[in-house]
Amino acid sequence: MTNSDVVAFVLFGGSGDLAKRKLYPSLYLNFIKGLLPGDCKIFSVSRLSEEVQAFQAEIFLQLERYVSPSQFSDEKAKAFVKCIRHIQLDVTRDDAWETLETHLERFRHAPIVYYLSVAPRFFGDIAKGIASVSLNQNGARLVVEKPFGHDFESARALNKELRLFFDEHQIFRIDHYLGKESIQNILALRFSNNIFESQWHAGAIESVQITVAEKLGVGDRGDYYDNNGASKDMLQNHMMQLLSIVAMEPPFAFSPDAIRDEKVKLLRSLRPIDADSYSDSCVRGQYVSGQGEASYLEDVDKESSDCETYIAIKGYIDNRRWAGTPFYLRTGKRLAGGVGEIVINFKPSNPELIKSKDGLCSNNKLVINFQPDQDIFLFINKKDNQSESFSVDTARLQLSTKSGDLKQPYERLLGHVLAGDQTLFVRDDEIEVAWKWLDQLAASWEQGGSSPYPYKGFSQGPIEADKLFVESNGWEPIK
Amino acid sequence: MTNSDVVAFVLFGGSGDLAKRKLYPSLYLNFIKGLLPGDCKIFSVSRLSEEVQAFQAEIFLQLERYVSPSQFSDEKAKAFVKCIRHIQLDVTRDDAWETLETHLERFRHAPIVYYLSVAPRFFGDIAKGIASVSLNQNGARLVVEKPFGHDFESARALNKELRLFFDEHQIFRIDHYLGKESIQNILALRFSNNIFESQWHAGAIESVQITVAEKLGVGDRGDYYDNNGASKDMLQNHMMQLLSIVAMEPPFAFSPDAIRDEKVKLLRSLRPIDADSYSDSCVRGQYVSGQGEASYLEDVDKESSDCETYIAIKGYIDNRRWAGTPFYLRTGKRLAGGVGEIVINFKPSNPELIKSKDGLCSNNKLVINFQPDQDIFLFINKKDNQSESFSVDTARLQLSTKSGDLKQPYERLLGHVLAGDQTLFVRDDEIEVAWKWLDQLAASWEQGGSSPYPYKGFSQGPIEADKLFVESNGWEPIK
Repeated sequence: MTNSDVVAFVLFGGSGDLAKRKLYPSLYLNFIKGLLPGDCKIFSVSRLSEEVQAFQAEIFLQLERYVSPSQFSDEKAKAFVKCIRHIQLDVTRDDAWETLETHLERFRHAPIVYYLSVAPRFFGDIAKGIASVSLNQNGARLVVEKPFGHDFESARALNKELRLFFDEHQIFRIDHYLGKESIQNILALRFSNNIFESQWHAGAIESVQITVAEKLGVGDRGDYYDNNGASKDMLQNHMMQLLSIVAMEPPFAFSPDAIRDEKVKLLRSLRPIDADSYSDSCVRGQYVSGQGEASYLEDVDKESSDCETYIAIKGYIDNRRWAGTPFYLRTGKRLAGGVGEIVINFKPSNPELIKSKDGLCSNNKLVINFQPDQDIFLFINKKDNQSESFSVDTARLQLSTKSGDLKQPYERLLGHVLAGDQTLFVRDDEIEVAWKWLDQLAASWEQGGSSPYPYKGFSQGPIEADKLFVESNGWEPIK
Repeated sequence: MTNSDVVAFVLFGGSGDLAKRKLYPSLYLNFIKGLLPGDCKIFSVSRLSEEVQAFQAEIFLQLERYVSPSQFSDEKAKAFVKCIRHIQLDVTRDDAWETLETHLERFRHAPIVYYLSVAPRFFGDIAKGIASVSLNQNGARLVVEKPFGHDFESARALNKELRLFFDEHQIFRIDHYLGKESIQNILALRFSNNIFESQWHAGAIESVQITVAEKLGVGDRGDYYDNNGASKDMLQNHMMQLLSIVAMEPPFAFSPDAIRDEKVKLLRSLRPIDADSYSDSCVRGQYVSGQGEASYLEDVDKESSDCETYIAIKGYIDNRRWAGTPFYLRTGKRLAGGVGEIVINFKPSNPELIKSKDGLCSNNKLVINFQPDQDIFLFINKKDNQSESFSVDTARLQLSTKSGDLKQPYERLLGHVLAGDQTLFVRDDEIEVAWKWLDQLAASWEQGGSSPYPYKGFSQGPIEADKLFVESNGWEPIK
């Protein structure tokens, strides 16, 4: 599609919050870098009536607010918003699609990108409507946001429904974590450094920790959240995507399906947590008040709830590469810090041979931060050059560079949609296998009738999660 | 000996250049750090007559000159030089030893360190003389400087002679390279980092390069040099010591003999270069004039000479760990730069999977600089975050820290002598096996009758040395 000199970008939910904060700014960034064709129109679709010039002016203000100052320019933003049109449409009405057809007639032979920034219950109808006027052809692409289903069955049904109208190669399921610079860098680090690649296995890696911690509570998403919890909100999608990128086998090529094939294989190898192993493998928690902030129950205004706002997993991957290496995953709200990080703990050296001044010698660690910052650190021991005795201390080496503006996740992902590259998008079978694993986990805790453990707001999470560690070091502190 | 509150340090050659530039400053640094006992006397021994206060004043000036400003203090230097005495002594005269005895009588029951900063032909007589008045007992130590022999037979004879009067555990053969911070750090890096230790073998390391390059010519050492050449001046001692530390098996403990046992084993595994393999394995060179500076022949004022001022080796270590990994060693004078470095080239990653913008993907490298600076760098590939395509670039990570003054080699080594720790000193069998290997090499080039190749002053050395590389990258440039 990058070769096409015409493109239409059709944004369902174009007046919504995600559109304003992320999508228009990301399209703008692609625009200023010359990655949009000269003849590009962006259609904002919503039920609201919008006067086009007022709408363009509003988007201009949003760009000013959400684009970094070094990348914002009055002139370019003005040129960009001139590409924006508005279509008033109620997607539940049958006459909607003729209206759409009228607007898109000129692009019938060009690639059209449909971005569904709307509630998932509309996905099927929109896909069907687009197809009803044959606007699903000629390289058309359908981009959908999470949540994608709420369990295996619903996800499979949704996949089937969408595939009635779009082929899998036209469907781009967004997980914006995959667009983060650090997460991209995992692939670069793993596969362009022999010192990492040759040690990326259970023989050399003691454990892996993946953490997504938020300080925020559920905020105004209480209704949605209480039906889903941390497991469906974060674990099934973002966390399992991170896990699959960290742990997958090397793809035979850097092509979308070669990589996604390996991710699916990895997720299929993730050992199910059944009712027997549940208590040793999973801890759920729910925040109570802390530092003067309300408890979860107060936030969702309920007497009681079994919804977890924290979940921690000790997972094992049943393949040859990872036999015996525990993967510790945890995510939660109202924790002590807002941080996303992956920690690769390499095995310790002979602890009797060389020690640090305090008698310990740290193991090598590779730490990949993906929020709020995109930093990568390697921890190496070296001679302590200020000590009289022969001892070591630890150096923290920064791999990531800070030069210039990094690509924002949505900027990168929209660029890939425009280029027709599905590498960073989640394939149907990935979604389904992740749900299958989570369904089994949820069945295990329901079978045991266990409620989430309470944990204090802004703490490290429930103390019970420490018990997932039998011998090794324990959780990295959340700061 | 650190527990002793009395010590005598007896410096033969105490008016010499090495003493003034290195030994007094190094003793001073140990002094200010409290590593010398309260009752410590330093006896400068020479044939010259010196008035003690004038001599102390001269050493004071030398300290001011050679100690770093941050470590020099008037007050401490004054206190230090008060410990210095002078003994006028001709070691070739039989009555010398009674004179020595008179001065050292008070230290007969304390440890005495004898430092022989004199021509090697005096080593035997001095050791014998000391023993003749029974001052070789009670923890006495004998420190000797290179050259230690000029071939296997002479080294073995010297070892035998010294051991008539001192036990091996009393003999400290100095190789000041072993006192360098970076060289010490090799042990720390190798044995406290699993990511290095588990890859320290032929399966993961493609090649190793060790370079000691000097810009200087032979200067006023022409007579000595022309009888020895780069092979005896640098290769047999410093370079082979570096090689053994880089490549030895892990010692079972960080004890002097556990480490030196492994170094000897390594040197014994170094494949001999015989007449057949010589031309593929060794290149000798001799500098001709360059940048207006004289040629070697002009420097030594000779019509012709077969002395090499440059030598390069492609060596193999015949053990399981290093089967097939070439070790490239080179040293020379009048080269393009003054640099000492060890480069560990790890194997490349799959070159087809990820590339840099220019289509290549560098292999991981660990670079240990030991002169002029003590820097250690690790080269790692990471995602190029400014490129539109998925490509990598290389980050140079600095492992070494620059905080404070590093210990100087002689400072460290004298501290170890005082502490009675032989770890950083060369054992008799190490010296002998290194000479044996070099004798074989020299026999091979003599058998072939090959003269050194000429190379231009301040160049990379003889072009012929490039031919030692068949497939791999070639020499690191000397800068």
